[in-house]
Amino acid sequence: MSAAREIHERIDEKFEEHLRRIQTYLRQPSISSTGQGMRETAEMTCGYIREMLGGEVTLVPTSGYPVVFGKLKSNTSNRTIFVYGMYDTQPVEPLDKWVSPPFEARIVGDRIIARGAINTKGPLMGFLNALESILDVTGDLPFNFVIGVEGEEEQGSIHLQEFVNKCADDLKMCETLYMPVPNQPSESAPPVLNLGFKGIVYLELECVTNPLDVHSSQAAILPNPAWRLIWALNSMRGEDGVLVEGFYENVEPPSPEDLHYVDSQADTVVKMMTAPYDVKRFRGKNVKAMARELVFAPSPINIDGFSSGWTGPATKTIVPSRALAKIDVRLVPNMTGEEIIEKIKAHLTKHGFDDIEIRVLSNYGWVKTSVREKAVQAAIKTFREFGYEPIIHPMRPGSAPMYLFCREPFNMKMLFGGLGHGGLAHAPNEYIMVNGLRDFEKSIVSFLYNYSQM
Amino acid sequence: MSAAREIHERIDEKFEEHLRRIQTYLRQPSISSTGQGMRETAEMTCGYIREMLGGEVTLVPTSGYPVVFGKLKSNTSNRTIFVYGMYDTQPVEPLDKWVSPPFEARIVGDRIIARGAINTKGPLMGFLNALESILDVTGDLPFNFVIGVEGEEEQGSIHLQEFVNKCADDLKMCETLYMPVPNQPSESAPPVLNLGFKGIVYLELECVTNPLDVHSSQAAILPNPAWRLIWALNSMRGEDGVLVEGFYENVEPPSPEDLHYVDSQADTVVKMMTAPYDVKRFRGKNVKAMARELVFAPSPINIDGFSSGWTGPATKTIVPSRALAKIDVRLVPNMTGEEIIEKIKAHLTKHGFDDIEIRVLSNYGWVKTSVREKAVQAAIKTFREFGYEPIIHPMRPGSAPMYLFCREPFNMKMLFGGLGHGGLAHAPNEYIMVNGLRDFEKSIVSFLYNYSQM
Repeated sequence: MSAAREIHERIDEKFEEHLRRIQTYLRQPSISSTGQGMRETAEMTCGYIREMLGGEVTLVPTSGYPVVFGKLKSNTSNRTIFVYGMYDTQPVEPLDKWVSPPFEARIVGDRIIARGAINTKGPLMGFLNALESILDVTGDLPFNFVIGVEGEEEQGSIHLQEFVNKCADDLKMCETLYMPVPNQPSESAPPVLNLGFKGIVYLELECVTNPLDVHSSQAAILPNPAWRLIWALNSMRGEDGVLVEGFYENVEPPSPEDLHYVDSQADTVVKMMTAPYDVKRFRGKNVKAMARELVFAPSPINIDGFSSGWTGPATKTIVPSRALAKIDVRLVPNMTGEEIIEKIKAHLTKHGFDDIEIRVLSNYGWVKTSVREKAVQAAIKTFREFGYEPIIHPMRPGSAPMYLFCREPFNMKMLFGGLGHGGLAHAPNEYIMVNGLRDFEKSIVSFLYNYSQM
Repeated sequence: MSAAREIHERIDEKFEEHLRRIQTYLRQPSISSTGQGMRETAEMTCGYIREMLGGEVTLVPTSGYPVVFGKLKSNTSNRTIFVYGMYDTQPVEPLDKWVSPPFEARIVGDRIIARGAINTKGPLMGFLNALESILDVTGDLPFNFVIGVEGEEEQGSIHLQEFVNKCADDLKMCETLYMPVPNQPSESAPPVLNLGFKGIVYLELECVTNPLDVHSSQAAILPNPAWRLIWALNSMRGEDGVLVEGFYENVEPPSPEDLHYVDSQADTVVKMMTAPYDVKRFRGKNVKAMARELVFAPSPINIDGFSSGWTGPATKTIVPSRALAKIDVRLVPNMTGEEIIEKIKAHLTKHGFDDIEIRVLSNYGWVKTSVREKAVQAAIKTFREFGYEPIIHPMRPGSAPMYLFCREPFNMKMLFGGLGHGGLAHAPNEYIMVNGLRDFEKSIVSFLYNYSQM
């Protein structure tokens, strides 16, 4: 019997205990936007790494919440994996929409209902359970691990760079960034293997024309900041794409292999993303073209919000004093946030919109790993062992702070995924399937052993 | 001694009593947007007309607040004037900005501070005081009066048409609509004589693309309602004016006389309007051109408000489900609201924006009276008697419901103005000058006698 199989059996034996530990962890609130339970959860996370796994663990302070920083030594391997995790979650409101309280972590039917159940405290504890089972059975680990669990992922990882700077020596030892998360779109669906994340630049554009809102009888002689911003934005994007000079010039075309993965599962890719939102209207009609856009194209300047003047009921007749737009661009290889910011600034100046102020609210890089990387091949092999042919997703259209680790000077490969299903992240009744957790823990074990042999 | 002079002396004798009555009236709140004190104020207004002037008075019900409807008979004149007034006011918030409570009507220095002091319960009571003095001295009135005091002016006179329909027989008897209001821009400035009001069409444009806000990672494949609305609006107006086909075709050019009035006082016209708002940035640089635009041009589609998506602090990455714009157009002779609504609808259809819904929130007509009308000439004569050469304002850039009375089937001439100064309408510390009230009452008396002789 292989080590992995023995450990799977151990997971089955101990699964009730694993579940209880996951529930205990989920019962401890940790909401970074309000601060509720953050310190307690950071210390609790340290405690688990120390007591379950005998790890060396500290809290690395940042200007925001500290990062739980752990190290686990293997007796036999000189290879090191960086495990990225997060201990913060989103707020729980609206409370009255939950079928059971968000911090009771009650098992309802075949799922655990709790804030953080799937995103991502449940999976994090599942990972620790899996490592504990490995140690129980073998007395060793197949890799060294460096573990960084941050407390500000839901705030855009705003201070994660500080952690990276402080712990650079340890991070330089790591060959792979591994974020173990259940990634089956539904219980029986094949898991999705994300090979990358788009970057994102998020900007605020503001135009202020006069100190006060003015009676709209004067509209004929006053500049209107909403019009200014509308004309500026209109000059930046048309129906068919972005008009900012040079916007697309660094976009790397997808490889034939990437295209193959997306084209062959275009319908799944689009449905998986849009179905939870009940999306009925699309920009295009051709599913293959849409899947390609979704995965390989920078977003054509999205407007996240626009606000000016009176937006309540009925009428208020004013020329507003101020207009504000929030926009984002999702970046694909080989775009950079800095480049896009400069191009947008130059565009506005060139088109006479110097009265519009630009503020950068966030700027994340993209990250991408080849399907041929050993970690990815190990994951594919693992999923096949469990009976699934994974869906290869060359790039996830969302963004994550992985680029901090996968670029110079660390150049880690990235692996993001695992068996198991959960859902309703950020929403009421967030859940993870109980059986999904069991598969999740087992898939971690198999992956690590498969990977250690490559 | 003329009748007018004797009545002026009477006003001086009784002025303390007049002031107290004005204060009593201002101490009764009447806020149409909250309903506070509306019924009480309507009945109080009836009481004054009945008891001070012996008038026949009723409350005419509408779907909203009732209209106070009074009739006063002259023993000697067969001419009738319609006096338009309002008993509602704006809310008082922010309360902490008032130097004395808004319903104390305290005299602070040389002014009465109260909500409604200038807009327009103070002037309405001043008018009733003036008529009482006429009756006291002469035992008669120089005209018959039909009085309509509405309670929804601050709500856009939304049910005034119902009153007009019910009282049409009485309104048909009236030659002039007279709204007596103090109209000196400052204490010693010459009064402004407004000969007209622009109309207004106020529209809401809404675009809904999908039922929910969607994660902005999907921006590449989803329609964005903010972009849809921005493109639609951009197609409707450029920097130099409105692009909707036929928008300007019915605009009547100003007469040489109108141009003369505006050109000769361009600086005053622009300053008077914009100074209270501390306006520093204008669309143009040429004051004469701006004054002409202000008075004679339709507003080039004003955006009163625009709202879509996340407009709070920091970042939220969504493709919004909905975008809403509120726009208005101020109408000049000979535009109609119906025509503009149809042209905007046709424009949106023609440019492929059928997904944008249009709702009409208000639609007022313009109104304009010639400077040669007897009522206007009587007012000019009156102001000169008081030592002022009035500023003739061919059209006030704002809007008012006067068109309901000045068009078919009533065709009244309009007079809007009087001596006196007050300010901060709709704002904290709204005021009217005590001495301005005295001048105001006297100017009403002189105007009525001057007018009765024409």
